[in-house]
Amino acid sequence: MPLSILKNRPMNNRFLLTVNLFFFLCLKIGAQHQVPIPTPAQLQWQNAELAALVCWDMHVFDGEFYVQKEVRITPVEDYNTFNPENYDMDQWIKAIRDAGFKIAIFTVSHETGFFFHQSNATPYSMKALSWQDGKGDILRDFKASCEKYGILPGVYIGTRWNAYYGIHDFKVQGDSEFSRNRQAYYNRTIEKIVEEIFANYGEWAMVWFDGGAHGPEQGGPDVLSVFEKYQPNGLFYHNLQRADIRWGGSETGTVPYPSWGTFPYRAIGAGESAKKEIGANNFQLLKKGDPDGVYYMPAMSDAPLRGKGGHDWFWEPNREHTIYPLDDLVNMYYNSVGYNTTLIMGLTPDPEGLLPQPDVKRLKEFGDEINRRFSNPIASTSGAGKTINLKLLERQIINQVVVMEDISQGERVRTFELEGKTSKGWRTIFKGSVIGHKFIHVFDDIEVTRMRLVIKSAIGTPKIKKIEVHKN
Amino acid sequence: MPLSILKNRPMNNRFLLTVNLFFFLCLKIGAQHQVPIPTPAQLQWQNAELAALVCWDMHVFDGEFYVQKEVRITPVEDYNTFNPENYDMDQWIKAIRDAGFKIAIFTVSHETGFFFHQSNATPYSMKALSWQDGKGDILRDFKASCEKYGILPGVYIGTRWNAYYGIHDFKVQGDSEFSRNRQAYYNRTIEKIVEEIFANYGEWAMVWFDGGAHGPEQGGPDVLSVFEKYQPNGLFYHNLQRADIRWGGSETGTVPYPSWGTFPYRAIGAGESAKKEIGANNFQLLKKGDPDGVYYMPAMSDAPLRGKGGHDWFWEPNREHTIYPLDDLVNMYYNSVGYNTTLIMGLTPDPEGLLPQPDVKRLKEFGDEINRRFSNPIASTSGAGKTINLKLLERQIINQVVVMEDISQGERVRTFELEGKTSKGWRTIFKGSVIGHKFIHVFDDIEVTRMRLVIKSAIGTPKIKKIEVHKN
Repeated sequence: MPLSILKNRPMNNRFLLTVNLFFFLCLKIGAQHQVPIPTPAQLQWQNAELAALVCWDMHVFDGEFYVQKEVRITPVEDYNTFNPENYDMDQWIKAIRDAGFKIAIFTVSHETGFFFHQSNATPYSMKALSWQDGKGDILRDFKASCEKYGILPGVYIGTRWNAYYGIHDFKVQGDSEFSRNRQAYYNRTIEKIVEEIFANYGEWAMVWFDGGAHGPEQGGPDVLSVFEKYQPNGLFYHNLQRADIRWGGSETGTVPYPSWGTFPYRAIGAGESAKKEIGANNFQLLKKGDPDGVYYMPAMSDAPLRGKGGHDWFWEPNREHTIYPLDDLVNMYYNSVGYNTTLIMGLTPDPEGLLPQPDVKRLKEFGDEINRRFSNPIASTSGAGKTINLKLLERQIINQVVVMEDISQGERVRTFELEGKTSKGWRTIFKGSVIGHKFIHVFDDIEVTRMRLVIKSAIGTPKIKKIEVHKN
Repeated sequence: MPLSILKNRPMNNRFLLTVNLFFFLCLKIGAQHQVPIPTPAQLQWQNAELAALVCWDMHVFDGEFYVQKEVRITPVEDYNTFNPENYDMDQWIKAIRDAGFKIAIFTVSHETGFFFHQSNATPYSMKALSWQDGKGDILRDFKASCEKYGILPGVYIGTRWNAYYGIHDFKVQGDSEFSRNRQAYYNRTIEKIVEEIFANYGEWAMVWFDGGAHGPEQGGPDVLSVFEKYQPNGLFYHNLQRADIRWGGSETGTVPYPSWGTFPYRAIGAGESAKKEIGANNFQLLKKGDPDGVYYMPAMSDAPLRGKGGHDWFWEPNREHTIYPLDDLVNMYYNSVGYNTTLIMGLTPDPEGLLPQPDVKRLKEFGDEINRRFSNPIASTSGAGKTINLKLLERQIINQVVVMEDISQGERVRTFELEGKTSKGWRTIFKGSVIGHKFIHVFDDIEVTRMRLVIKSAIGTPKIKKIEVHKN
């Protein structure tokens, strides 16, 4: 019963509300036998594990250091400074593919208000540029390269800030008739823009509305119905009506353990405007989720690659020193993918139109290292039930275990123990709660002949897609 | 001594101020020998007599009736409704030429904020359109057709209202840092736009800033210095620093008599924001001017062709009945050109891209009628001094006289009488004050053998460029 699909759609009439309440009550009554399950889009998202968020905006080209709060309220001086002479979209996507990423998301707009696609809805877009004689379409190129390299495409759309048109935290300032007309026009413009993006470029694996998208109930555009019309199979992130994933509560590329894929609220709101319960304790609820949450909404772990002694989602000159060292990235992987979340790595092409070589090199090192660490398990198995046994071919030293639930059935495991059989008998290696899509645990070397996953409590029958051990 | 040139330029340093004061004092002391004289651009403007103001803006294409106060505060829903399929600029300009007009002025922008030229300064311009694949440039076409048909080109630029960008009476609303940044950006954008218009399209006979242009001292852009850099020979209308002509105080296409070409203030301000002295008594000062005014700044008489039972500067469907009847237009001519002002006739192409046939037909009738009335004078002469005599070849009935001063020397005549020699001796036909560029008087049939212009008072030696009599 695809409960989460209902849960994640707006209740647009009384009937749906009734149905929803009915299932909600069923869930509470039969809580021991039912957990929220992901949609196919959510499954695809979690299976991807590594997503690249490719960030570009007009201020990358202005030669000045990016100060977000200024860019939000100051139109870019000259949009024709956008002139990436060595622009090569394939170079971006190939670098992403070569590093093992499965999804790429492109910022068709962020906060300047400029849209990187051919638009008939907003003039502040590719047609305005001298570059490629106004015929360029970064979004089209992005989509084509993703297809070429087998990368799932996502699109990031900023509607919350628009320095050009004068949108400040979703709103036109003032409450005159003038302001109300501008707001209404902006809302309709956004609806037309998202229709262009969703209708004209084929399928999107996901859409990411920057800071969420205000819906009509907040005086904003109705982007969700446009999305659902044209992208019925896509992952939607997010507004107050629907959020298929949730922010992980930081931009460190990590979450703490445990991070449940379930959440007690339909929506998370923008960071600054989240419910008190969501924002409390530095967004603990976003980070950890809630095992009893009735919405399937796994966390993301996002961070810019240029985040060491900086936090550069957008390219700026002479900032190569902020590229995370390999060790940091590997650590980030363990604390994101290894903790049941998708790692979203921010990448940003330079004004020449290329992903800078130092970034490409580090990405590749990262992908190679992850591959080295995880592509040759010592032993691997799968199964259902309370105990999953894994027998090694011989007594071996191990120090890493990967466990995956079959989350198409939801996160059923509530508590578990990992045990290894040493020469002195069974030893507990880890006591945990959530497994979810993937749980990776690193521990001190231990010599074992067998491993077993003992599920102490679960809702329904636990289904373990994979358990494997490694030695690094 | 081109005093008016100094008067009409901003006093941008102490030296100029001193020079100006010096001449001002000279003028007061030697008032009997000195009147303000026009610049070559002002002379050209007055010699033209008939100017067409060609009005187009995006709302012409929206299929809805134009309500100015709504359009000012409501962005046009879909700019791609601009799609004039039979667009023919030559048809516009040929119609204007065929009707005897000498100047055409095109609204490169009015109040929607859309600019009808190829711009790299504002995306809300021709590049944004699907029409002509974004390569169209109405301003370029306008300039080329004007050249082809020997029409002096002028450009009308709206900066006061911009529904798209959110400019309301020159201003961004609010006083936050956000608003201040937007205002500063808008100002710079306007400076760039006017630089494009003034630098890239050759010479303009005149520029008309809609409702005036706020200058830097009012928190607006510095358009004047851009104009003076690129269009040193052009007529500038207008801001608080400079106004080479003045609004005639109504949009009826007429002024009362007398309407002096001189004015006591450097600037007129926008209608709504004019000095109290300028706005008083329904803009009497604008209508009549001031014989003692130290600024040469002749009035215009402006009206839309579709102004009978309407006031349609911009095309709307099914409004042909508002086209002025021929008699009204001829009457307008007498009360504008005949009263020392340039008649500015508002024309507006339809959404197909053509001046509508009923408008073209009426224009042609108007031009033909003016030609019929004035192209065959019974007698004509010119001269300098207190009395100008005009001897007819034979005793004839006349009922119309045209008198022109040589205004390159300024408006020297203060009072005059027109007399005709009948069989019963000299009879006074008219006692007047200003002649200026042109004075036309219509009177009851009178049979004369001679006419004389007796100048009762003048500043300096009166110079009469032409006096001619007609019988209609």
